[in-house]
Amino acid sequence: MRAAVYLSAGDVTVDDVPDAAVVEPTDAVVRVLRSCVCGSDLWSYRGVVNREAGSRMGHEFLGLVEDVGRDVTTLEVGDLVVSPFQWSDNTCPACLDGIQSSCANGGTFGAPGADGGQGEAVRVPLADGTLVAVPSGAGEDLYPALLATSDVLGTGLHGATLAGVSEGATVAVIGDGAVGLCAVLGATTVLGAERVILMSRHADRTELGRRFGATDIVESRGAEGIAAVRELTRGLGVRHVVEAVGTKESWEMAVGMAREGGAIGAVGVPHASPRLPLFGPFVHHLTISLGIAPVRRYLPMLIERTVDGTLDAGPVFDTVLPLEQVGDAYAAMASRQSIKVMLT
Amino acid sequence: MRAAVYLSAGDVTVDDVPDAAVVEPTDAVVRVLRSCVCGSDLWSYRGVVNREAGSRMGHEFLGLVEDVGRDVTTLEVGDLVVSPFQWSDNTCPACLDGIQSSCANGGTFGAPGADGGQGEAVRVPLADGTLVAVPSGAGEDLYPALLATSDVLGTGLHGATLAGVSEGATVAVIGDGAVGLCAVLGATTVLGAERVILMSRHADRTELGRRFGATDIVESRGAEGIAAVRELTRGLGVRHVVEAVGTKESWEMAVGMAREGGAIGAVGVPHASPRLPLFGPFVHHLTISLGIAPVRRYLPMLIERTVDGTLDAGPVFDTVLPLEQVGDAYAAMASRQSIKVMLT
Repeated sequence: MRAAVYLSAGDVTVDDVPDAAVVEPTDAVVRVLRSCVCGSDLWSYRGVVNREAGSRMGHEFLGLVEDVGRDVTTLEVGDLVVSPFQWSDNTCPACLDGIQSSCANGGTFGAPGADGGQGEAVRVPLADGTLVAVPSGAGEDLYPALLATSDVLGTGLHGATLAGVSEGATVAVIGDGAVGLCAVLGATTVLGAERVILMSRHADRTELGRRFGATDIVESRGAEGIAAVRELTRGLGVRHVVEAVGTKESWEMAVGMAREGGAIGAVGVPHASPRLPLFGPFVHHLTISLGIAPVRRYLPMLIERTVDGTLDAGPVFDTVLPLEQVGDAYAAMASRQSIKVMLT
Repeated sequence: MRAAVYLSAGDVTVDDVPDAAVVEPTDAVVRVLRSCVCGSDLWSYRGVVNREAGSRMGHEFLGLVEDVGRDVTTLEVGDLVVSPFQWSDNTCPACLDGIQSSCANGGTFGAPGADGGQGEAVRVPLADGTLVAVPSGAGEDLYPALLATSDVLGTGLHGATLAGVSEGATVAVIGDGAVGLCAVLGATTVLGAERVILMSRHADRTELGRRFGATDIVESRGAEGIAAVRELTRGLGVRHVVEAVGTKESWEMAVGMAREGGAIGAVGVPHASPRLPLFGPFVHHLTISLGIAPVRRYLPMLIERTVDGTLDAGPVFDTVLPLEQVGDAYAAMASRQSIKVMLT
């Protein structure tokens, strides 16, 4: 079968790889209908983190169950399924706590030895604990929105959840990538925030942010950005901040714009492990919650709301390309020409 | 009147100072019955932080209202009162959020220009928003327990609260000073924790920790301490960690012993502003809540429970000295000969 393969920084291509197959009795094989490129895929593409040459890429996909191991009980061949970007048993202590992304037996698609989502098919370990079936009747028009639930929507919503967003809240979102935009959507449509300040200086992203519910846009960054957010909030700062970037600079903004006693929900992967000076958060009574989103926890709800038409994160995909042009997809996202590319 | 005065590192003495007096109409003057030395007073005593020569010391006191300004409505001359270590208006946005320690008009006793608690009397700004009257009938035998509510008990309880401790919880407490010991008491007696692991290697503190409800004692520190806590918790780590030290080393322990998805409640003042690498907390889904305890929030409840006999933090005072021997009090605490010294 064909699948995206990482060659070196700046070079992702499509190549022939062994067919995906059931190995363990708890596996399923999913024939991919749609996949996409994630902001986190760009870290190795840009050479910021190392990745083994020849390894598979991608971790978001929507497809049809093609084969199941003998121990799989909740899925049938032919089911339309969404996969979270990680597999999980959904039964270990962490999973029972709703942190499937810390599953004792879990892993991430595209990691060494695992199939990637950017390919014709994917071997899914622990299929019962991982895949969620879409109710029958969901047409192709819903595929973009369903695909978005596999990572960016779940991750954005998790950021807003970690930041303690609830009905009527005022929220600031740092990061205008697909995750940041989905944090806006999750905060408003799912959690009921009334006011969402999106930090963004790109017209296309700003426009989508407004469509997803952002009520205010702040273009400036750093100290100026902080001052602008404080001005919008009677000098108090915001009670709920979603950090969807993961850099030292974005963390400084997050701490700076939080209200006394405020909460920061952080889903931007802190690849460089920025070091947070603790005195400021101590003096200002902040609560800081971080984590790789346990998308599996949210997936049944997100799929249900996507299918019933009350939630649509599909517009994060502003570019569609065939799998064979995966190299162009990476280039478009790395240059920020595209917010997110869907692969068919 | 007589009051403790800071001269230089290692030198705190008692000297004649101007009498405490009502200056603003919202002030009260409290004649001090009992005060004490705080672990945080030791920072300047040890020369770790600078303090102006001649400045007043101490921020915990219990006493009788001696005079009130014309705008004070909730207190009368003769009332027995406990003061939190900071004054607050109890009406600003932060106070209404229960974070009186971030009060827009607040301040700390013993700070430049303010009276200190270690003296014969104290001018208390914003008396209505600060002082809490003790129900009549509380005898001298309750003074140690009441005095402990002014800082260490409220601070320890706040740590446990920030760490999300609730009925039946398993908690680890890092720090065996008065605050850490009071975190044990708050976690068990107030919040209903079932199991409390206290990190301590001092026999006297260990014994008091057990008396306050600690079920397990871990003497080792660093990686060994983390391993010991994990061994006590089926390898999972603890869901609730109270950080009551504030150093780089104590933070490393806190992060290392927290369970996936766990919470750290931090009340140890991070004077040196240690920098927390964010990748670990991100991977392990931690929630980190920090803050100077808003003791005023807890004070009415703590006083009520102290007077009704269900809560007694008095035993943290293992030494009693007259105010005139304040220098000996500092020396005893700095050498860790004493857990906490009460001044009469």
